[in-house]
Amino acid sequence: MQFSKLDDLRALCRDLPDGDSQASEAAARRQQVLTKPPGSLGRLEELAIWLARWQGREHPRLDHVTIAVFAGNHGVAARGVSAYPAEVTAQMVANFAGGGAAINQIAALAGATLKVGPITLERPTRDFTTASAMDEDEFLQALALGYRAVPEACDLLVVGEMGIANTTTAAALCAALLGGGGARWAGRGTGVDDRGLARKRSTIEAALQLHQAALGDPLAVAVRVGGRELAAIAGAVLAARQRRIPVLLDGFVATAAVLPLWRVAANFLDHCRAGHVSAEAGHRALLAALKLDPLLDLNMRLGEASGAAVAVLLLRAALACHNGMATFAEAGVSDQEAGQR
Amino acid sequence: MQFSKLDDLRALCRDLPDGDSQASEAAARRQQVLTKPPGSLGRLEELAIWLARWQGREHPRLDHVTIAVFAGNHGVAARGVSAYPAEVTAQMVANFAGGGAAINQIAALAGATLKVGPITLERPTRDFTTASAMDEDEFLQALALGYRAVPEACDLLVVGEMGIANTTTAAALCAALLGGGGARWAGRGTGVDDRGLARKRSTIEAALQLHQAALGDPLAVAVRVGGRELAAIAGAVLAARQRRIPVLLDGFVATAAVLPLWRVAANFLDHCRAGHVSAEAGHRALLAALKLDPLLDLNMRLGEASGAAVAVLLLRAALACHNGMATFAEAGVSDQEAGQR
Repeated sequence: MQFSKLDDLRALCRDLPDGDSQASEAAARRQQVLTKPPGSLGRLEELAIWLARWQGREHPRLDHVTIAVFAGNHGVAARGVSAYPAEVTAQMVANFAGGGAAINQIAALAGATLKVGPITLERPTRDFTTASAMDEDEFLQALALGYRAVPEACDLLVVGEMGIANTTTAAALCAALLGGGGARWAGRGTGVDDRGLARKRSTIEAALQLHQAALGDPLAVAVRVGGRELAAIAGAVLAARQRRIPVLLDGFVATAAVLPLWRVAANFLDHCRAGHVSAEAGHRALLAALKLDPLLDLNMRLGEASGAAVAVLLLRAALACHNGMATFAEAGVSDQEAGQR
Repeated sequence: MQFSKLDDLRALCRDLPDGDSQASEAAARRQQVLTKPPGSLGRLEELAIWLARWQGREHPRLDHVTIAVFAGNHGVAARGVSAYPAEVTAQMVANFAGGGAAINQIAALAGATLKVGPITLERPTRDFTTASAMDEDEFLQALALGYRAVPEACDLLVVGEMGIANTTTAAALCAALLGGGGARWAGRGTGVDDRGLARKRSTIEAALQLHQAALGDPLAVAVRVGGRELAAIAGAVLAARQRRIPVLLDGFVATAAVLPLWRVAANFLDHCRAGHVSAEAGHRALLAALKLDPLLDLNMRLGEASGAAVAVLLLRAALACHNGMATFAEAGVSDQEAGQR
């Protein structure tokens, strides 16, 4: 897939396939006859039905789970908005390759394949307080890279990121597309102190000022105050949607990455669930705006898909029950009506 | 272990071992040097340190995880407080043996061994609106059964239950020991309708009335309005504490089961975590009273240890990171100070 202009992307977002309601209805019927009070598995039931809908089968599988972590560098890092130096992006990519990061351990536990996509780390985006972070071609190339990263065999896609300073980028996207300014969306990221937090807020305010004329166009916003790894996430989530692959989003940055496409098409996230709500200040408000109810709330704020990768374990629990449990008839267990007087 | 009188049990609860603070401090130091911003794994860090404390080792293990599900029947079932007939308790025990229940699937996924302990199902407790549910010997025998159920090799104990009508029992315990009456603690259990819910409330009120004179003694309350599977859970959690084995509690009933011993000794639950908060009405308030912060909130309300068994997956994620991640020095990643200006 090549995207030669923003309008190609806009057109795709307005022609998205829906899930398979026959499969989800069959899965919902199955949940009613398994040996448990109806509804008593709560979100595990909802997740099994959601997977059925997007995989198009009553008995969903998680044989091929891909965790895609995209990495990028950011011109705004030079403004002192992160507790870590920009070199850490490449160092952590090497750590992913060496198997030493949190996501390596969680991916192995979750039975998922980790794919890491570093995007021109030697060439950061431009500082968006003084210029457009990318031009349209740079943005569309990063998006296409993400689009192509979803493998042939994929039952579930999990998206995450690594990029020093990218919570500032994510906060700028939220402020530009949802309002509220830097104070609402800037958080401590990897752990900035009060002065760093103040710098994040003023950096976002400066970006809003500079790009004011573009704020009405979500895709222009993604070009001007976004980042390459965020564009790649958006591309991967779009590819998954076109192929009806369910998606788990990770934290604040990964969720902000899909915000521009959601602003283009309000049904863009129907195939997505939020793996968790992170401790990063803006994430809970962002999820609320997107009407996403996170699966986990563990005070995590690491990024690199770590929270969503933990949530894969919940999907496995959901399917273990959905596919493995006996029905009332099979087990010879009395059903509910017998007790209700 | 034999418990010949309630005072033996009371004495044990007042002489509980503490965790190993050297091991937990070593684990906390390790978390500071792993390749992530300090604290960024949130509760996964806290869980690894908690497991270190109670297992007494810097690198905790989950090689031997036991899920103990105790089952009992309840005289109050005859009052129409459940959506299912009392026969379902034994039918579900058979379903556990046959591998068809939710807990079978989740236990297998979590790498845990399921042990099911049905306790004299043919002899329900007495209806506690007209008599004491058990006498002291019956209570202590059930407690000793649970106490002995914790196997020799056990890195983690997960406790749950099965027992038609036992959310009424659990609510009665809460009302007796925490106040607030039937209206505060009765919920829909497996799915009673409004009339069933009203019957639960009045059943609890009748019990409080009858046993009023005993309400000052938590163990007498457990004898009079408790249940055998709840007593067994309390015994298993006590045995785990004496051997410094960490414990995950399941839902409303399993948590109510340990309430009497917590009223005897406020440090009784230091080795416990709440696996989840269930959808049963009283659970969130009960956890708040016990100062337990649940790991999951998935709207589950099945019992049979299912929610806590899902939480075992979170403990595995915590330990995968804690034991498997590289340190900053090992991975050649710059640490935080380099970025903070």
